[in-house]
Amino acid sequence: MEFKVMHEDGESRARIGEIQTEHGKITTPVFMPVGTKATVKAILPEQLKEIGAQIILGNTYHLYLQPGPKLIEEFGGLHKFMNWDGPILTDSGGFQVFSLGIGMAEGLGKMTNYFPGEDTRTEVQKYVPKKKLAKIDDDGVTFYSHIDHSRHRFTPESSIKIQEQLGADIILAFDECTSYSADHAYTKNALARTHSWAKRCIAAHCTKQALFGIIQGGTFKDLREESAEFISKLPFDGLCIGGSLGRTKKEMHDLLDWTVPMLPKDKPRHLLGIAGFDDLLECTERGMDMFDCVSPTRNARSGLVYISPESGGSRQNKWRFRIQNTPFRNDHKPIDPACDCYVCRNYSRAYIHHLFRANELLAYNLTSYHNLYFMHRFVDSIRESIKDGSFLELKKFWLS
Amino acid sequence: MEFKVMHEDGESRARIGEIQTEHGKITTPVFMPVGTKATVKAILPEQLKEIGAQIILGNTYHLYLQPGPKLIEEFGGLHKFMNWDGPILTDSGGFQVFSLGIGMAEGLGKMTNYFPGEDTRTEVQKYVPKKKLAKIDDDGVTFYSHIDHSRHRFTPESSIKIQEQLGADIILAFDECTSYSADHAYTKNALARTHSWAKRCIAAHCTKQALFGIIQGGTFKDLREESAEFISKLPFDGLCIGGSLGRTKKEMHDLLDWTVPMLPKDKPRHLLGIAGFDDLLECTERGMDMFDCVSPTRNARSGLVYISPESGGSRQNKWRFRIQNTPFRNDHKPIDPACDCYVCRNYSRAYIHHLFRANELLAYNLTSYHNLYFMHRFVDSIRESIKDGSFLELKKFWLS
Repeated sequence: MEFKVMHEDGESRARIGEIQTEHGKITTPVFMPVGTKATVKAILPEQLKEIGAQIILGNTYHLYLQPGPKLIEEFGGLHKFMNWDGPILTDSGGFQVFSLGIGMAEGLGKMTNYFPGEDTRTEVQKYVPKKKLAKIDDDGVTFYSHIDHSRHRFTPESSIKIQEQLGADIILAFDECTSYSADHAYTKNALARTHSWAKRCIAAHCTKQALFGIIQGGTFKDLREESAEFISKLPFDGLCIGGSLGRTKKEMHDLLDWTVPMLPKDKPRHLLGIAGFDDLLECTERGMDMFDCVSPTRNARSGLVYISPESGGSRQNKWRFRIQNTPFRNDHKPIDPACDCYVCRNYSRAYIHHLFRANELLAYNLTSYHNLYFMHRFVDSIRESIKDGSFLELKKFWLS
Repeated sequence: MEFKVMHEDGESRARIGEIQTEHGKITTPVFMPVGTKATVKAILPEQLKEIGAQIILGNTYHLYLQPGPKLIEEFGGLHKFMNWDGPILTDSGGFQVFSLGIGMAEGLGKMTNYFPGEDTRTEVQKYVPKKKLAKIDDDGVTFYSHIDHSRHRFTPESSIKIQEQLGADIILAFDECTSYSADHAYTKNALARTHSWAKRCIAAHCTKQALFGIIQGGTFKDLREESAEFISKLPFDGLCIGGSLGRTKKEMHDLLDWTVPMLPKDKPRHLLGIAGFDDLLECTERGMDMFDCVSPTRNARSGLVYISPESGGSRQNKWRFRIQNTPFRNDHKPIDPACDCYVCRNYSRAYIHHLFRANELLAYNLTSYHNLYFMHRFVDSIRESIKDGSFLELKKFWLS
């Protein structure tokens, strides 16, 4: 893998870069759709190409359990197995072990309450766990499958081995993903493990796949700085910022302001699991290059479809509306009149409203297509604005 | 609508015909995918084009309840609403009133136990109905929605009116679809109603849409003959054979042997709701031109995928296998090695097995695509064999 910065914004840390992989070129900033179990939910690989997806993400934890890395290896890797010939990144399994193990035991879900301080719908629940699904020690993690409760173990070495079998272009180091409820002492210990595991991942790594390191340290400035320095010095091909990013978006922004300036300029930087429209703007501004999130497809399946500021999208409505709602029953307009995607060119809100009300499977394909297309054009516009010097204007247009 | 017979088989009643509609030409014998609620389940209209679907069927009963014919009319009809610009046929709602009303009350489903004498899986259940969902009188049918139990009424006039609002190219007369459990006396009465309704449908019909009449009469030779004669004499554009087609396929074949010779040669003949591979061969041989059935897509969604005789398909296994079964977990072959569809060219049995096991939505699209493609190539081969005089050979190849 090769990376070069092509253009830097004069007024912020935003930049345009190019990653060259064996399966093609990626221009950053980039958003990558998530294909957890060897499929981007409800979407055909051909549709991903049409949408302009440059790279997709697969989840090691899920693929390890189902259908298993050996089977995928026998098929020549994830690309051939799932019929996607573009670049792929796999995570290390560390995050899922957290969210399905420790996180679940504490009643915390990174994904459901990513920024708990800003979650107006639900209070974080405290409860006594029925069963703790994962147990971390200094050598690795023992966990129980969420499918059949069978017992498994990941170590840095086994995570790398599995990711080699899956055959993605970019693979991630195995890390301990701490919760925002962890205190300084626990997070410091966990960070020491993550750093020791990072070195073990590099030692175990023996393919041409690019290997990215992960910076942890929770919301503690000293730990994040320590981690940024430590991980940056290791011979990784790229750097991820992972783990708990705070209780509010403000905390995440602070965390990036501490960390990113410490990172080498010549390596791509991936912010793991974050991709709201505001996040992409705020975090690109702070120097991040790569983003992934299940939100476009997950929102789509629940009927939440994206609209642009031109069509009434705003920070307040999170640039989306719920297509099943009664006002759209007879609405002849496309999902977003300002969108030129296949779905908006061919279907009305009323038709998609009908598909949801009638529980028709096509609903999930059409809305996932629109949301992914919308997100990709949004990131295109970010790149264009960096190129022509109007990035902060674009940000203002979306966030005002 | 225009119809002409292009070619007749020398050794059977099989024939090739052409139907000209405002939305394009249909070459018969034809199989039409069912798009009950304004969507062929899990399939994009573009995929239907790719597959070579010539016409699709929509269900008046379902569309009337959801989203309602007025809404579809406001959108310029079903074609525009669902983004399908090819020919469409809508049924009259009569069959659904039967299967969701009387049929349900008697514990009979036309679709689930179409040929009860041959159903080895389930015995026809006799039970006391909780609520009878439909009540037939000489003027029409009062029924209760299966969605919200609201009360509705169909008459011949309202069925025609609704189908005009839906705007299909071919619409059907409103009929009473009797069950195989109905006796001669009941069926005779119902037939008189169906005939009187046929005349009322013709009187009410005032668009350019083609209107097809429906021959009923259960499994009673005298009644089927009476109906064939009566319906044939009315100025319909085509003729359907509907209702209970017997307890065994032998009974259905007898019924066609009685009826079809009485029908005019210059009108297309549609066998409603029947389309097994053996049925298409047997009934084309007996002079039928048009077929529809939910089976390719319904089978697909439950993991039953079609295979050709070349790949081991036979009457015994119904030319299909269940892709979720363990032997296919690691199977590198496509669903059918003899099939050249998009799915068979790009995906392994193992991948599709994985999608089903992992409850991934893409499973439904890929298997529905394969089954519909397979069915369309099968009907193509029937047409070709009629053209080159090898129809009975083709039949033998499939059924031996």
